[in-house]
This record gives sequence, structure tokens and C-alpha cells, in this order.
Amino acid sequence: MPFELYVDSLYTSPYALSAFVALTEKGLPFTVKTVDLGSGEQRLAAYAGRALTGRVPALVEGDFVLTESTAITEYLEETFPAPEYARLYPHDRRQRAQARQIQAWVRSDLVPVRVERDTETVFFKKPCSPLTETAQQAAAKLVHLAERFVQGPQHLFGEWSLADTDLAIMLSRLVRNGDEVPAKLRDYVEFQWQRPSVQQWLARHQPG
Amino acid sequence: MPFELYVDSLYTSPYALSAFVALTEKGLPFTVKTVDLGSGEQRLAAYAGRALTGRVPALVEGDFVLTESTAITEYLEETFPAPEYARLYPHDRRQRAQARQIQAWVRSDLVPVRVERDTETVFFKKPCSPLTETAQQAAAKLVHLAERFVQGPQHLFGEWSLADTDLAIMLSRLVRNGDEVPAKLRDYVEFQWQRPSVQQWLARHQPG
Ligand SMILES: [Ca+2]
Ligand SMILES: [Ca+2]
Ligand SMILES: [Ca+2]
Ligand SMILES: [Ca+2]
Repeated sequence: MPFELYVDSLYTSPYALSAFVALTEKGLPFTVKTVDLGSGEQRLAAYAGRALTGRVPALVEGDFVLTESTAITEYLEETFPAPEYARLYPHDRRQRAQARQIQAWVRSDLVPVRVERDTETVFFKKPCSPLTETAQQAAAKLVHLAERFVQGPQHLFGEWSLADTDLAIMLSRLVRNGDEVPAKLRDYVEFQWQRPSVQQWLARHQPG
Repeated sequence: MPFELYVDSLYTSPYALSAFVALTEKGLPFTVKTVDLGSGEQRLAAYAGRALTGRVPALVEGDFVLTESTAITEYLEETFPAPEYARLYPHDRRQRAQARQIQAWVRSDLVPVRVERDTETVFFKKPCSPLTETAQQAAAKLVHLAERFVQGPQHLFGEWSLADTDLAIMLSRLVRNGDEVPAKLRDYVEFQWQRPSVQQWLARHQPG
């Protein structure tokens, strides 16, 4: 049975992107449904009655509805494991832990960067105000840690994992706005940005 | 080799608690080290140089240092699996996904409740101001979803999982402050609160 994936109608949620990339990398058939966050559609019973947290993304598999992007991607990894399906998380146990560390970190820390470099603004290349001092500190922390995590221009753990996409999207908040980011990290973001599964997502909101 | 677990020196971080409970439930030997968040010890090189995100909890296993509570508990579950060790996540694949959904949700949503009902205030029973209107809405969402998740006075998924502890601690922010919470949920919080692994944590900051 094909999956349904509910995402924000502007295609700017980095968490919806992560789930979209996971389904795409696994080669699973799925249809995309959109939720208009701007008008509060996520709070209406038609959505929140099934997707309990009232957030995007939501994965629908028959009667089973699951929200929270990392819960979705862990579920897909367990249900459609390597080697038959592409791997979303590193094979090595400690690298897998580090990938989850990065996923949890970009979802729960660095709030000022996530607010002042909202993906909607960044993806549509709208002008942003300079970062406040608090956000500058958060941006500095992001860059500092990313420099320690990112060893080369390609993947964090030898081969691609979902942590690459999640970290690159977090960094892209700064890069795409023209905020100062070391060349090594700009190259890394660009490399991850070009990944076909990411491009398939971006194609949905970029008309040209 | 015994683990080290770095936690906040006041023992009020619900995420440090979650990792502490995981190690305790698994019956693994570990020593607890404290980080004084109030004085910014987590940002000093001695800590942040090893625990890269500069947050608690951090799990130390020789040279391997891991932060982010869910990364830690998934790592422990994979490294010390059932049935030899106690299970932290439900055995059933979809229930396991739902447990992760709850863990991710209480860590990333409901910010006003987490701010206005800070665990430090709640655990030490200091007086809180009435919830602002925004926090009231978040509290209402928390209660509404918890009522759907919690089926009886005991565990979410038939037997205990870490999602029970995480959800109960989130609800305890309201319950222990005397905010209005349905009896079913109060009973659930009290039941989870009495769990020996949780009590072992609470004993560290409650002198009587
Ligand atoms: Ca729609
Ligand atoms: Ca946005
Ligand atoms: Ca200390
Ligand atoms: Ca606190």
C-alpha cells in the first residue's frame, strides 16, 4: 500500500523535507499531501484528529498515522532495512548514535537561528535582517560544531545519512542568506543540496 | 567499563533524567557527574570540548562521548538489547514508532509550557505565575493529546517504556504545580513518578 506524506503547503519545513528524503531514498511509493500551516489547517479536526500532534510531517500507512520526522524516519529504516533498501542511518553503531545526536540537536537547540533564519525566508530568498546578538551566538555555535562534525566536502560518516541532509539544511539557513560561513561548510551544504532526493523536494517550490 | 553520565547539578533536566532512567533500567554500572548549568560550566572547554553540543546529558564510554538524550537511549537500547537487558522501547514496531513520536514531541513542541513550568521550579515546588494565554493553549494541547495517548492509569504500551517517563515528566510540570489536569492523567503521572528508577533520580535532589 503506498504511503501518504503530509507536508507543509509551502514545502519549507526542514522536518517534512527530511521525511520526504527518507521515503525517496528508500524508493518507496508515496503521495504527497499538503497542509496549509498559514491558515491553521493543521489544527482542524480533519488533520489533527488523525495526526495527533497536529504537526507536519505526518506519515500515513492505512490506519496508522505517525508524526515527528525522526519517529517517521526510524520507522522507515526498521520497516525497510538495508541492504534491500537504501540505508538512512550509518551501519556502525556509534556513527548511528552520532547521526541521531545531530538530528536531535538541530531540532532542539539553536532556536534563535531557526527563528531569525526561518526556512521559508531562506528558501524563497527573501531578505533577512542581520542576526541579533543572541542569534549570532547560536550561529557561531552551529558553525563551530559543524566544523568539528564535517570532515570533508562530502558525507559526515563515509556514506550519506539523513544527518547530512538535516545538518546541511540547518547550515543552509545561514549560507543561502549570505551570512558568514567557512568555505568548507559552504561546499558541504552545496554538495548535500545537489542530492537528487533533496532536489526533488526543492523542485516542488522552485518554479525555475 | 562503567559509563559516566553527565547531568545538571540540580538534577532537574528531564532529558538527563531520561538518560539516567535508561541506564538504571538496563542495570548498567555508571557514575553520575554533574555540570553546573547556572554558572555556564557546560560551555567551558573541559565539558564542551568533549560533549560537543555543550548540553546535558552526556554519556561517556571511554573515548566515546554522546549527547542528546534520545541518541543516548537509542544507543543503550541497541548496545544492551532485550531480553538480556530491560527494554526501553516497545517491542512492537508501530508502538515503538509511537513511543519515539512522544519523545520527539515533548522535546520540540509546547515551548510555553516548558518555559513557564520549568522543571527546576516545579520539582522544587517553587510558586509559579498563572500560565499566560499562549501557555494555556499549549497546556490544553498537552492535556488533550495525553488523554488520547494514555489509555489507563499505568503504561502507554502495555508495559513500561521510556515514553511513559518522558510524557509523565512533561505532565508533571502542570500536575505538581496544581494546574488543572484530569484525574486520569494525574493518576498516570503519580504511577510513573513512583517507578524506582525515577525515584532514584529524585532522591538526588529531594532531601526528605
Ligand atoms: Ca491540503
Ligand atoms: Ca518556516
Ligand atoms: Ca561538576
Ligand atoms: Ca530547568
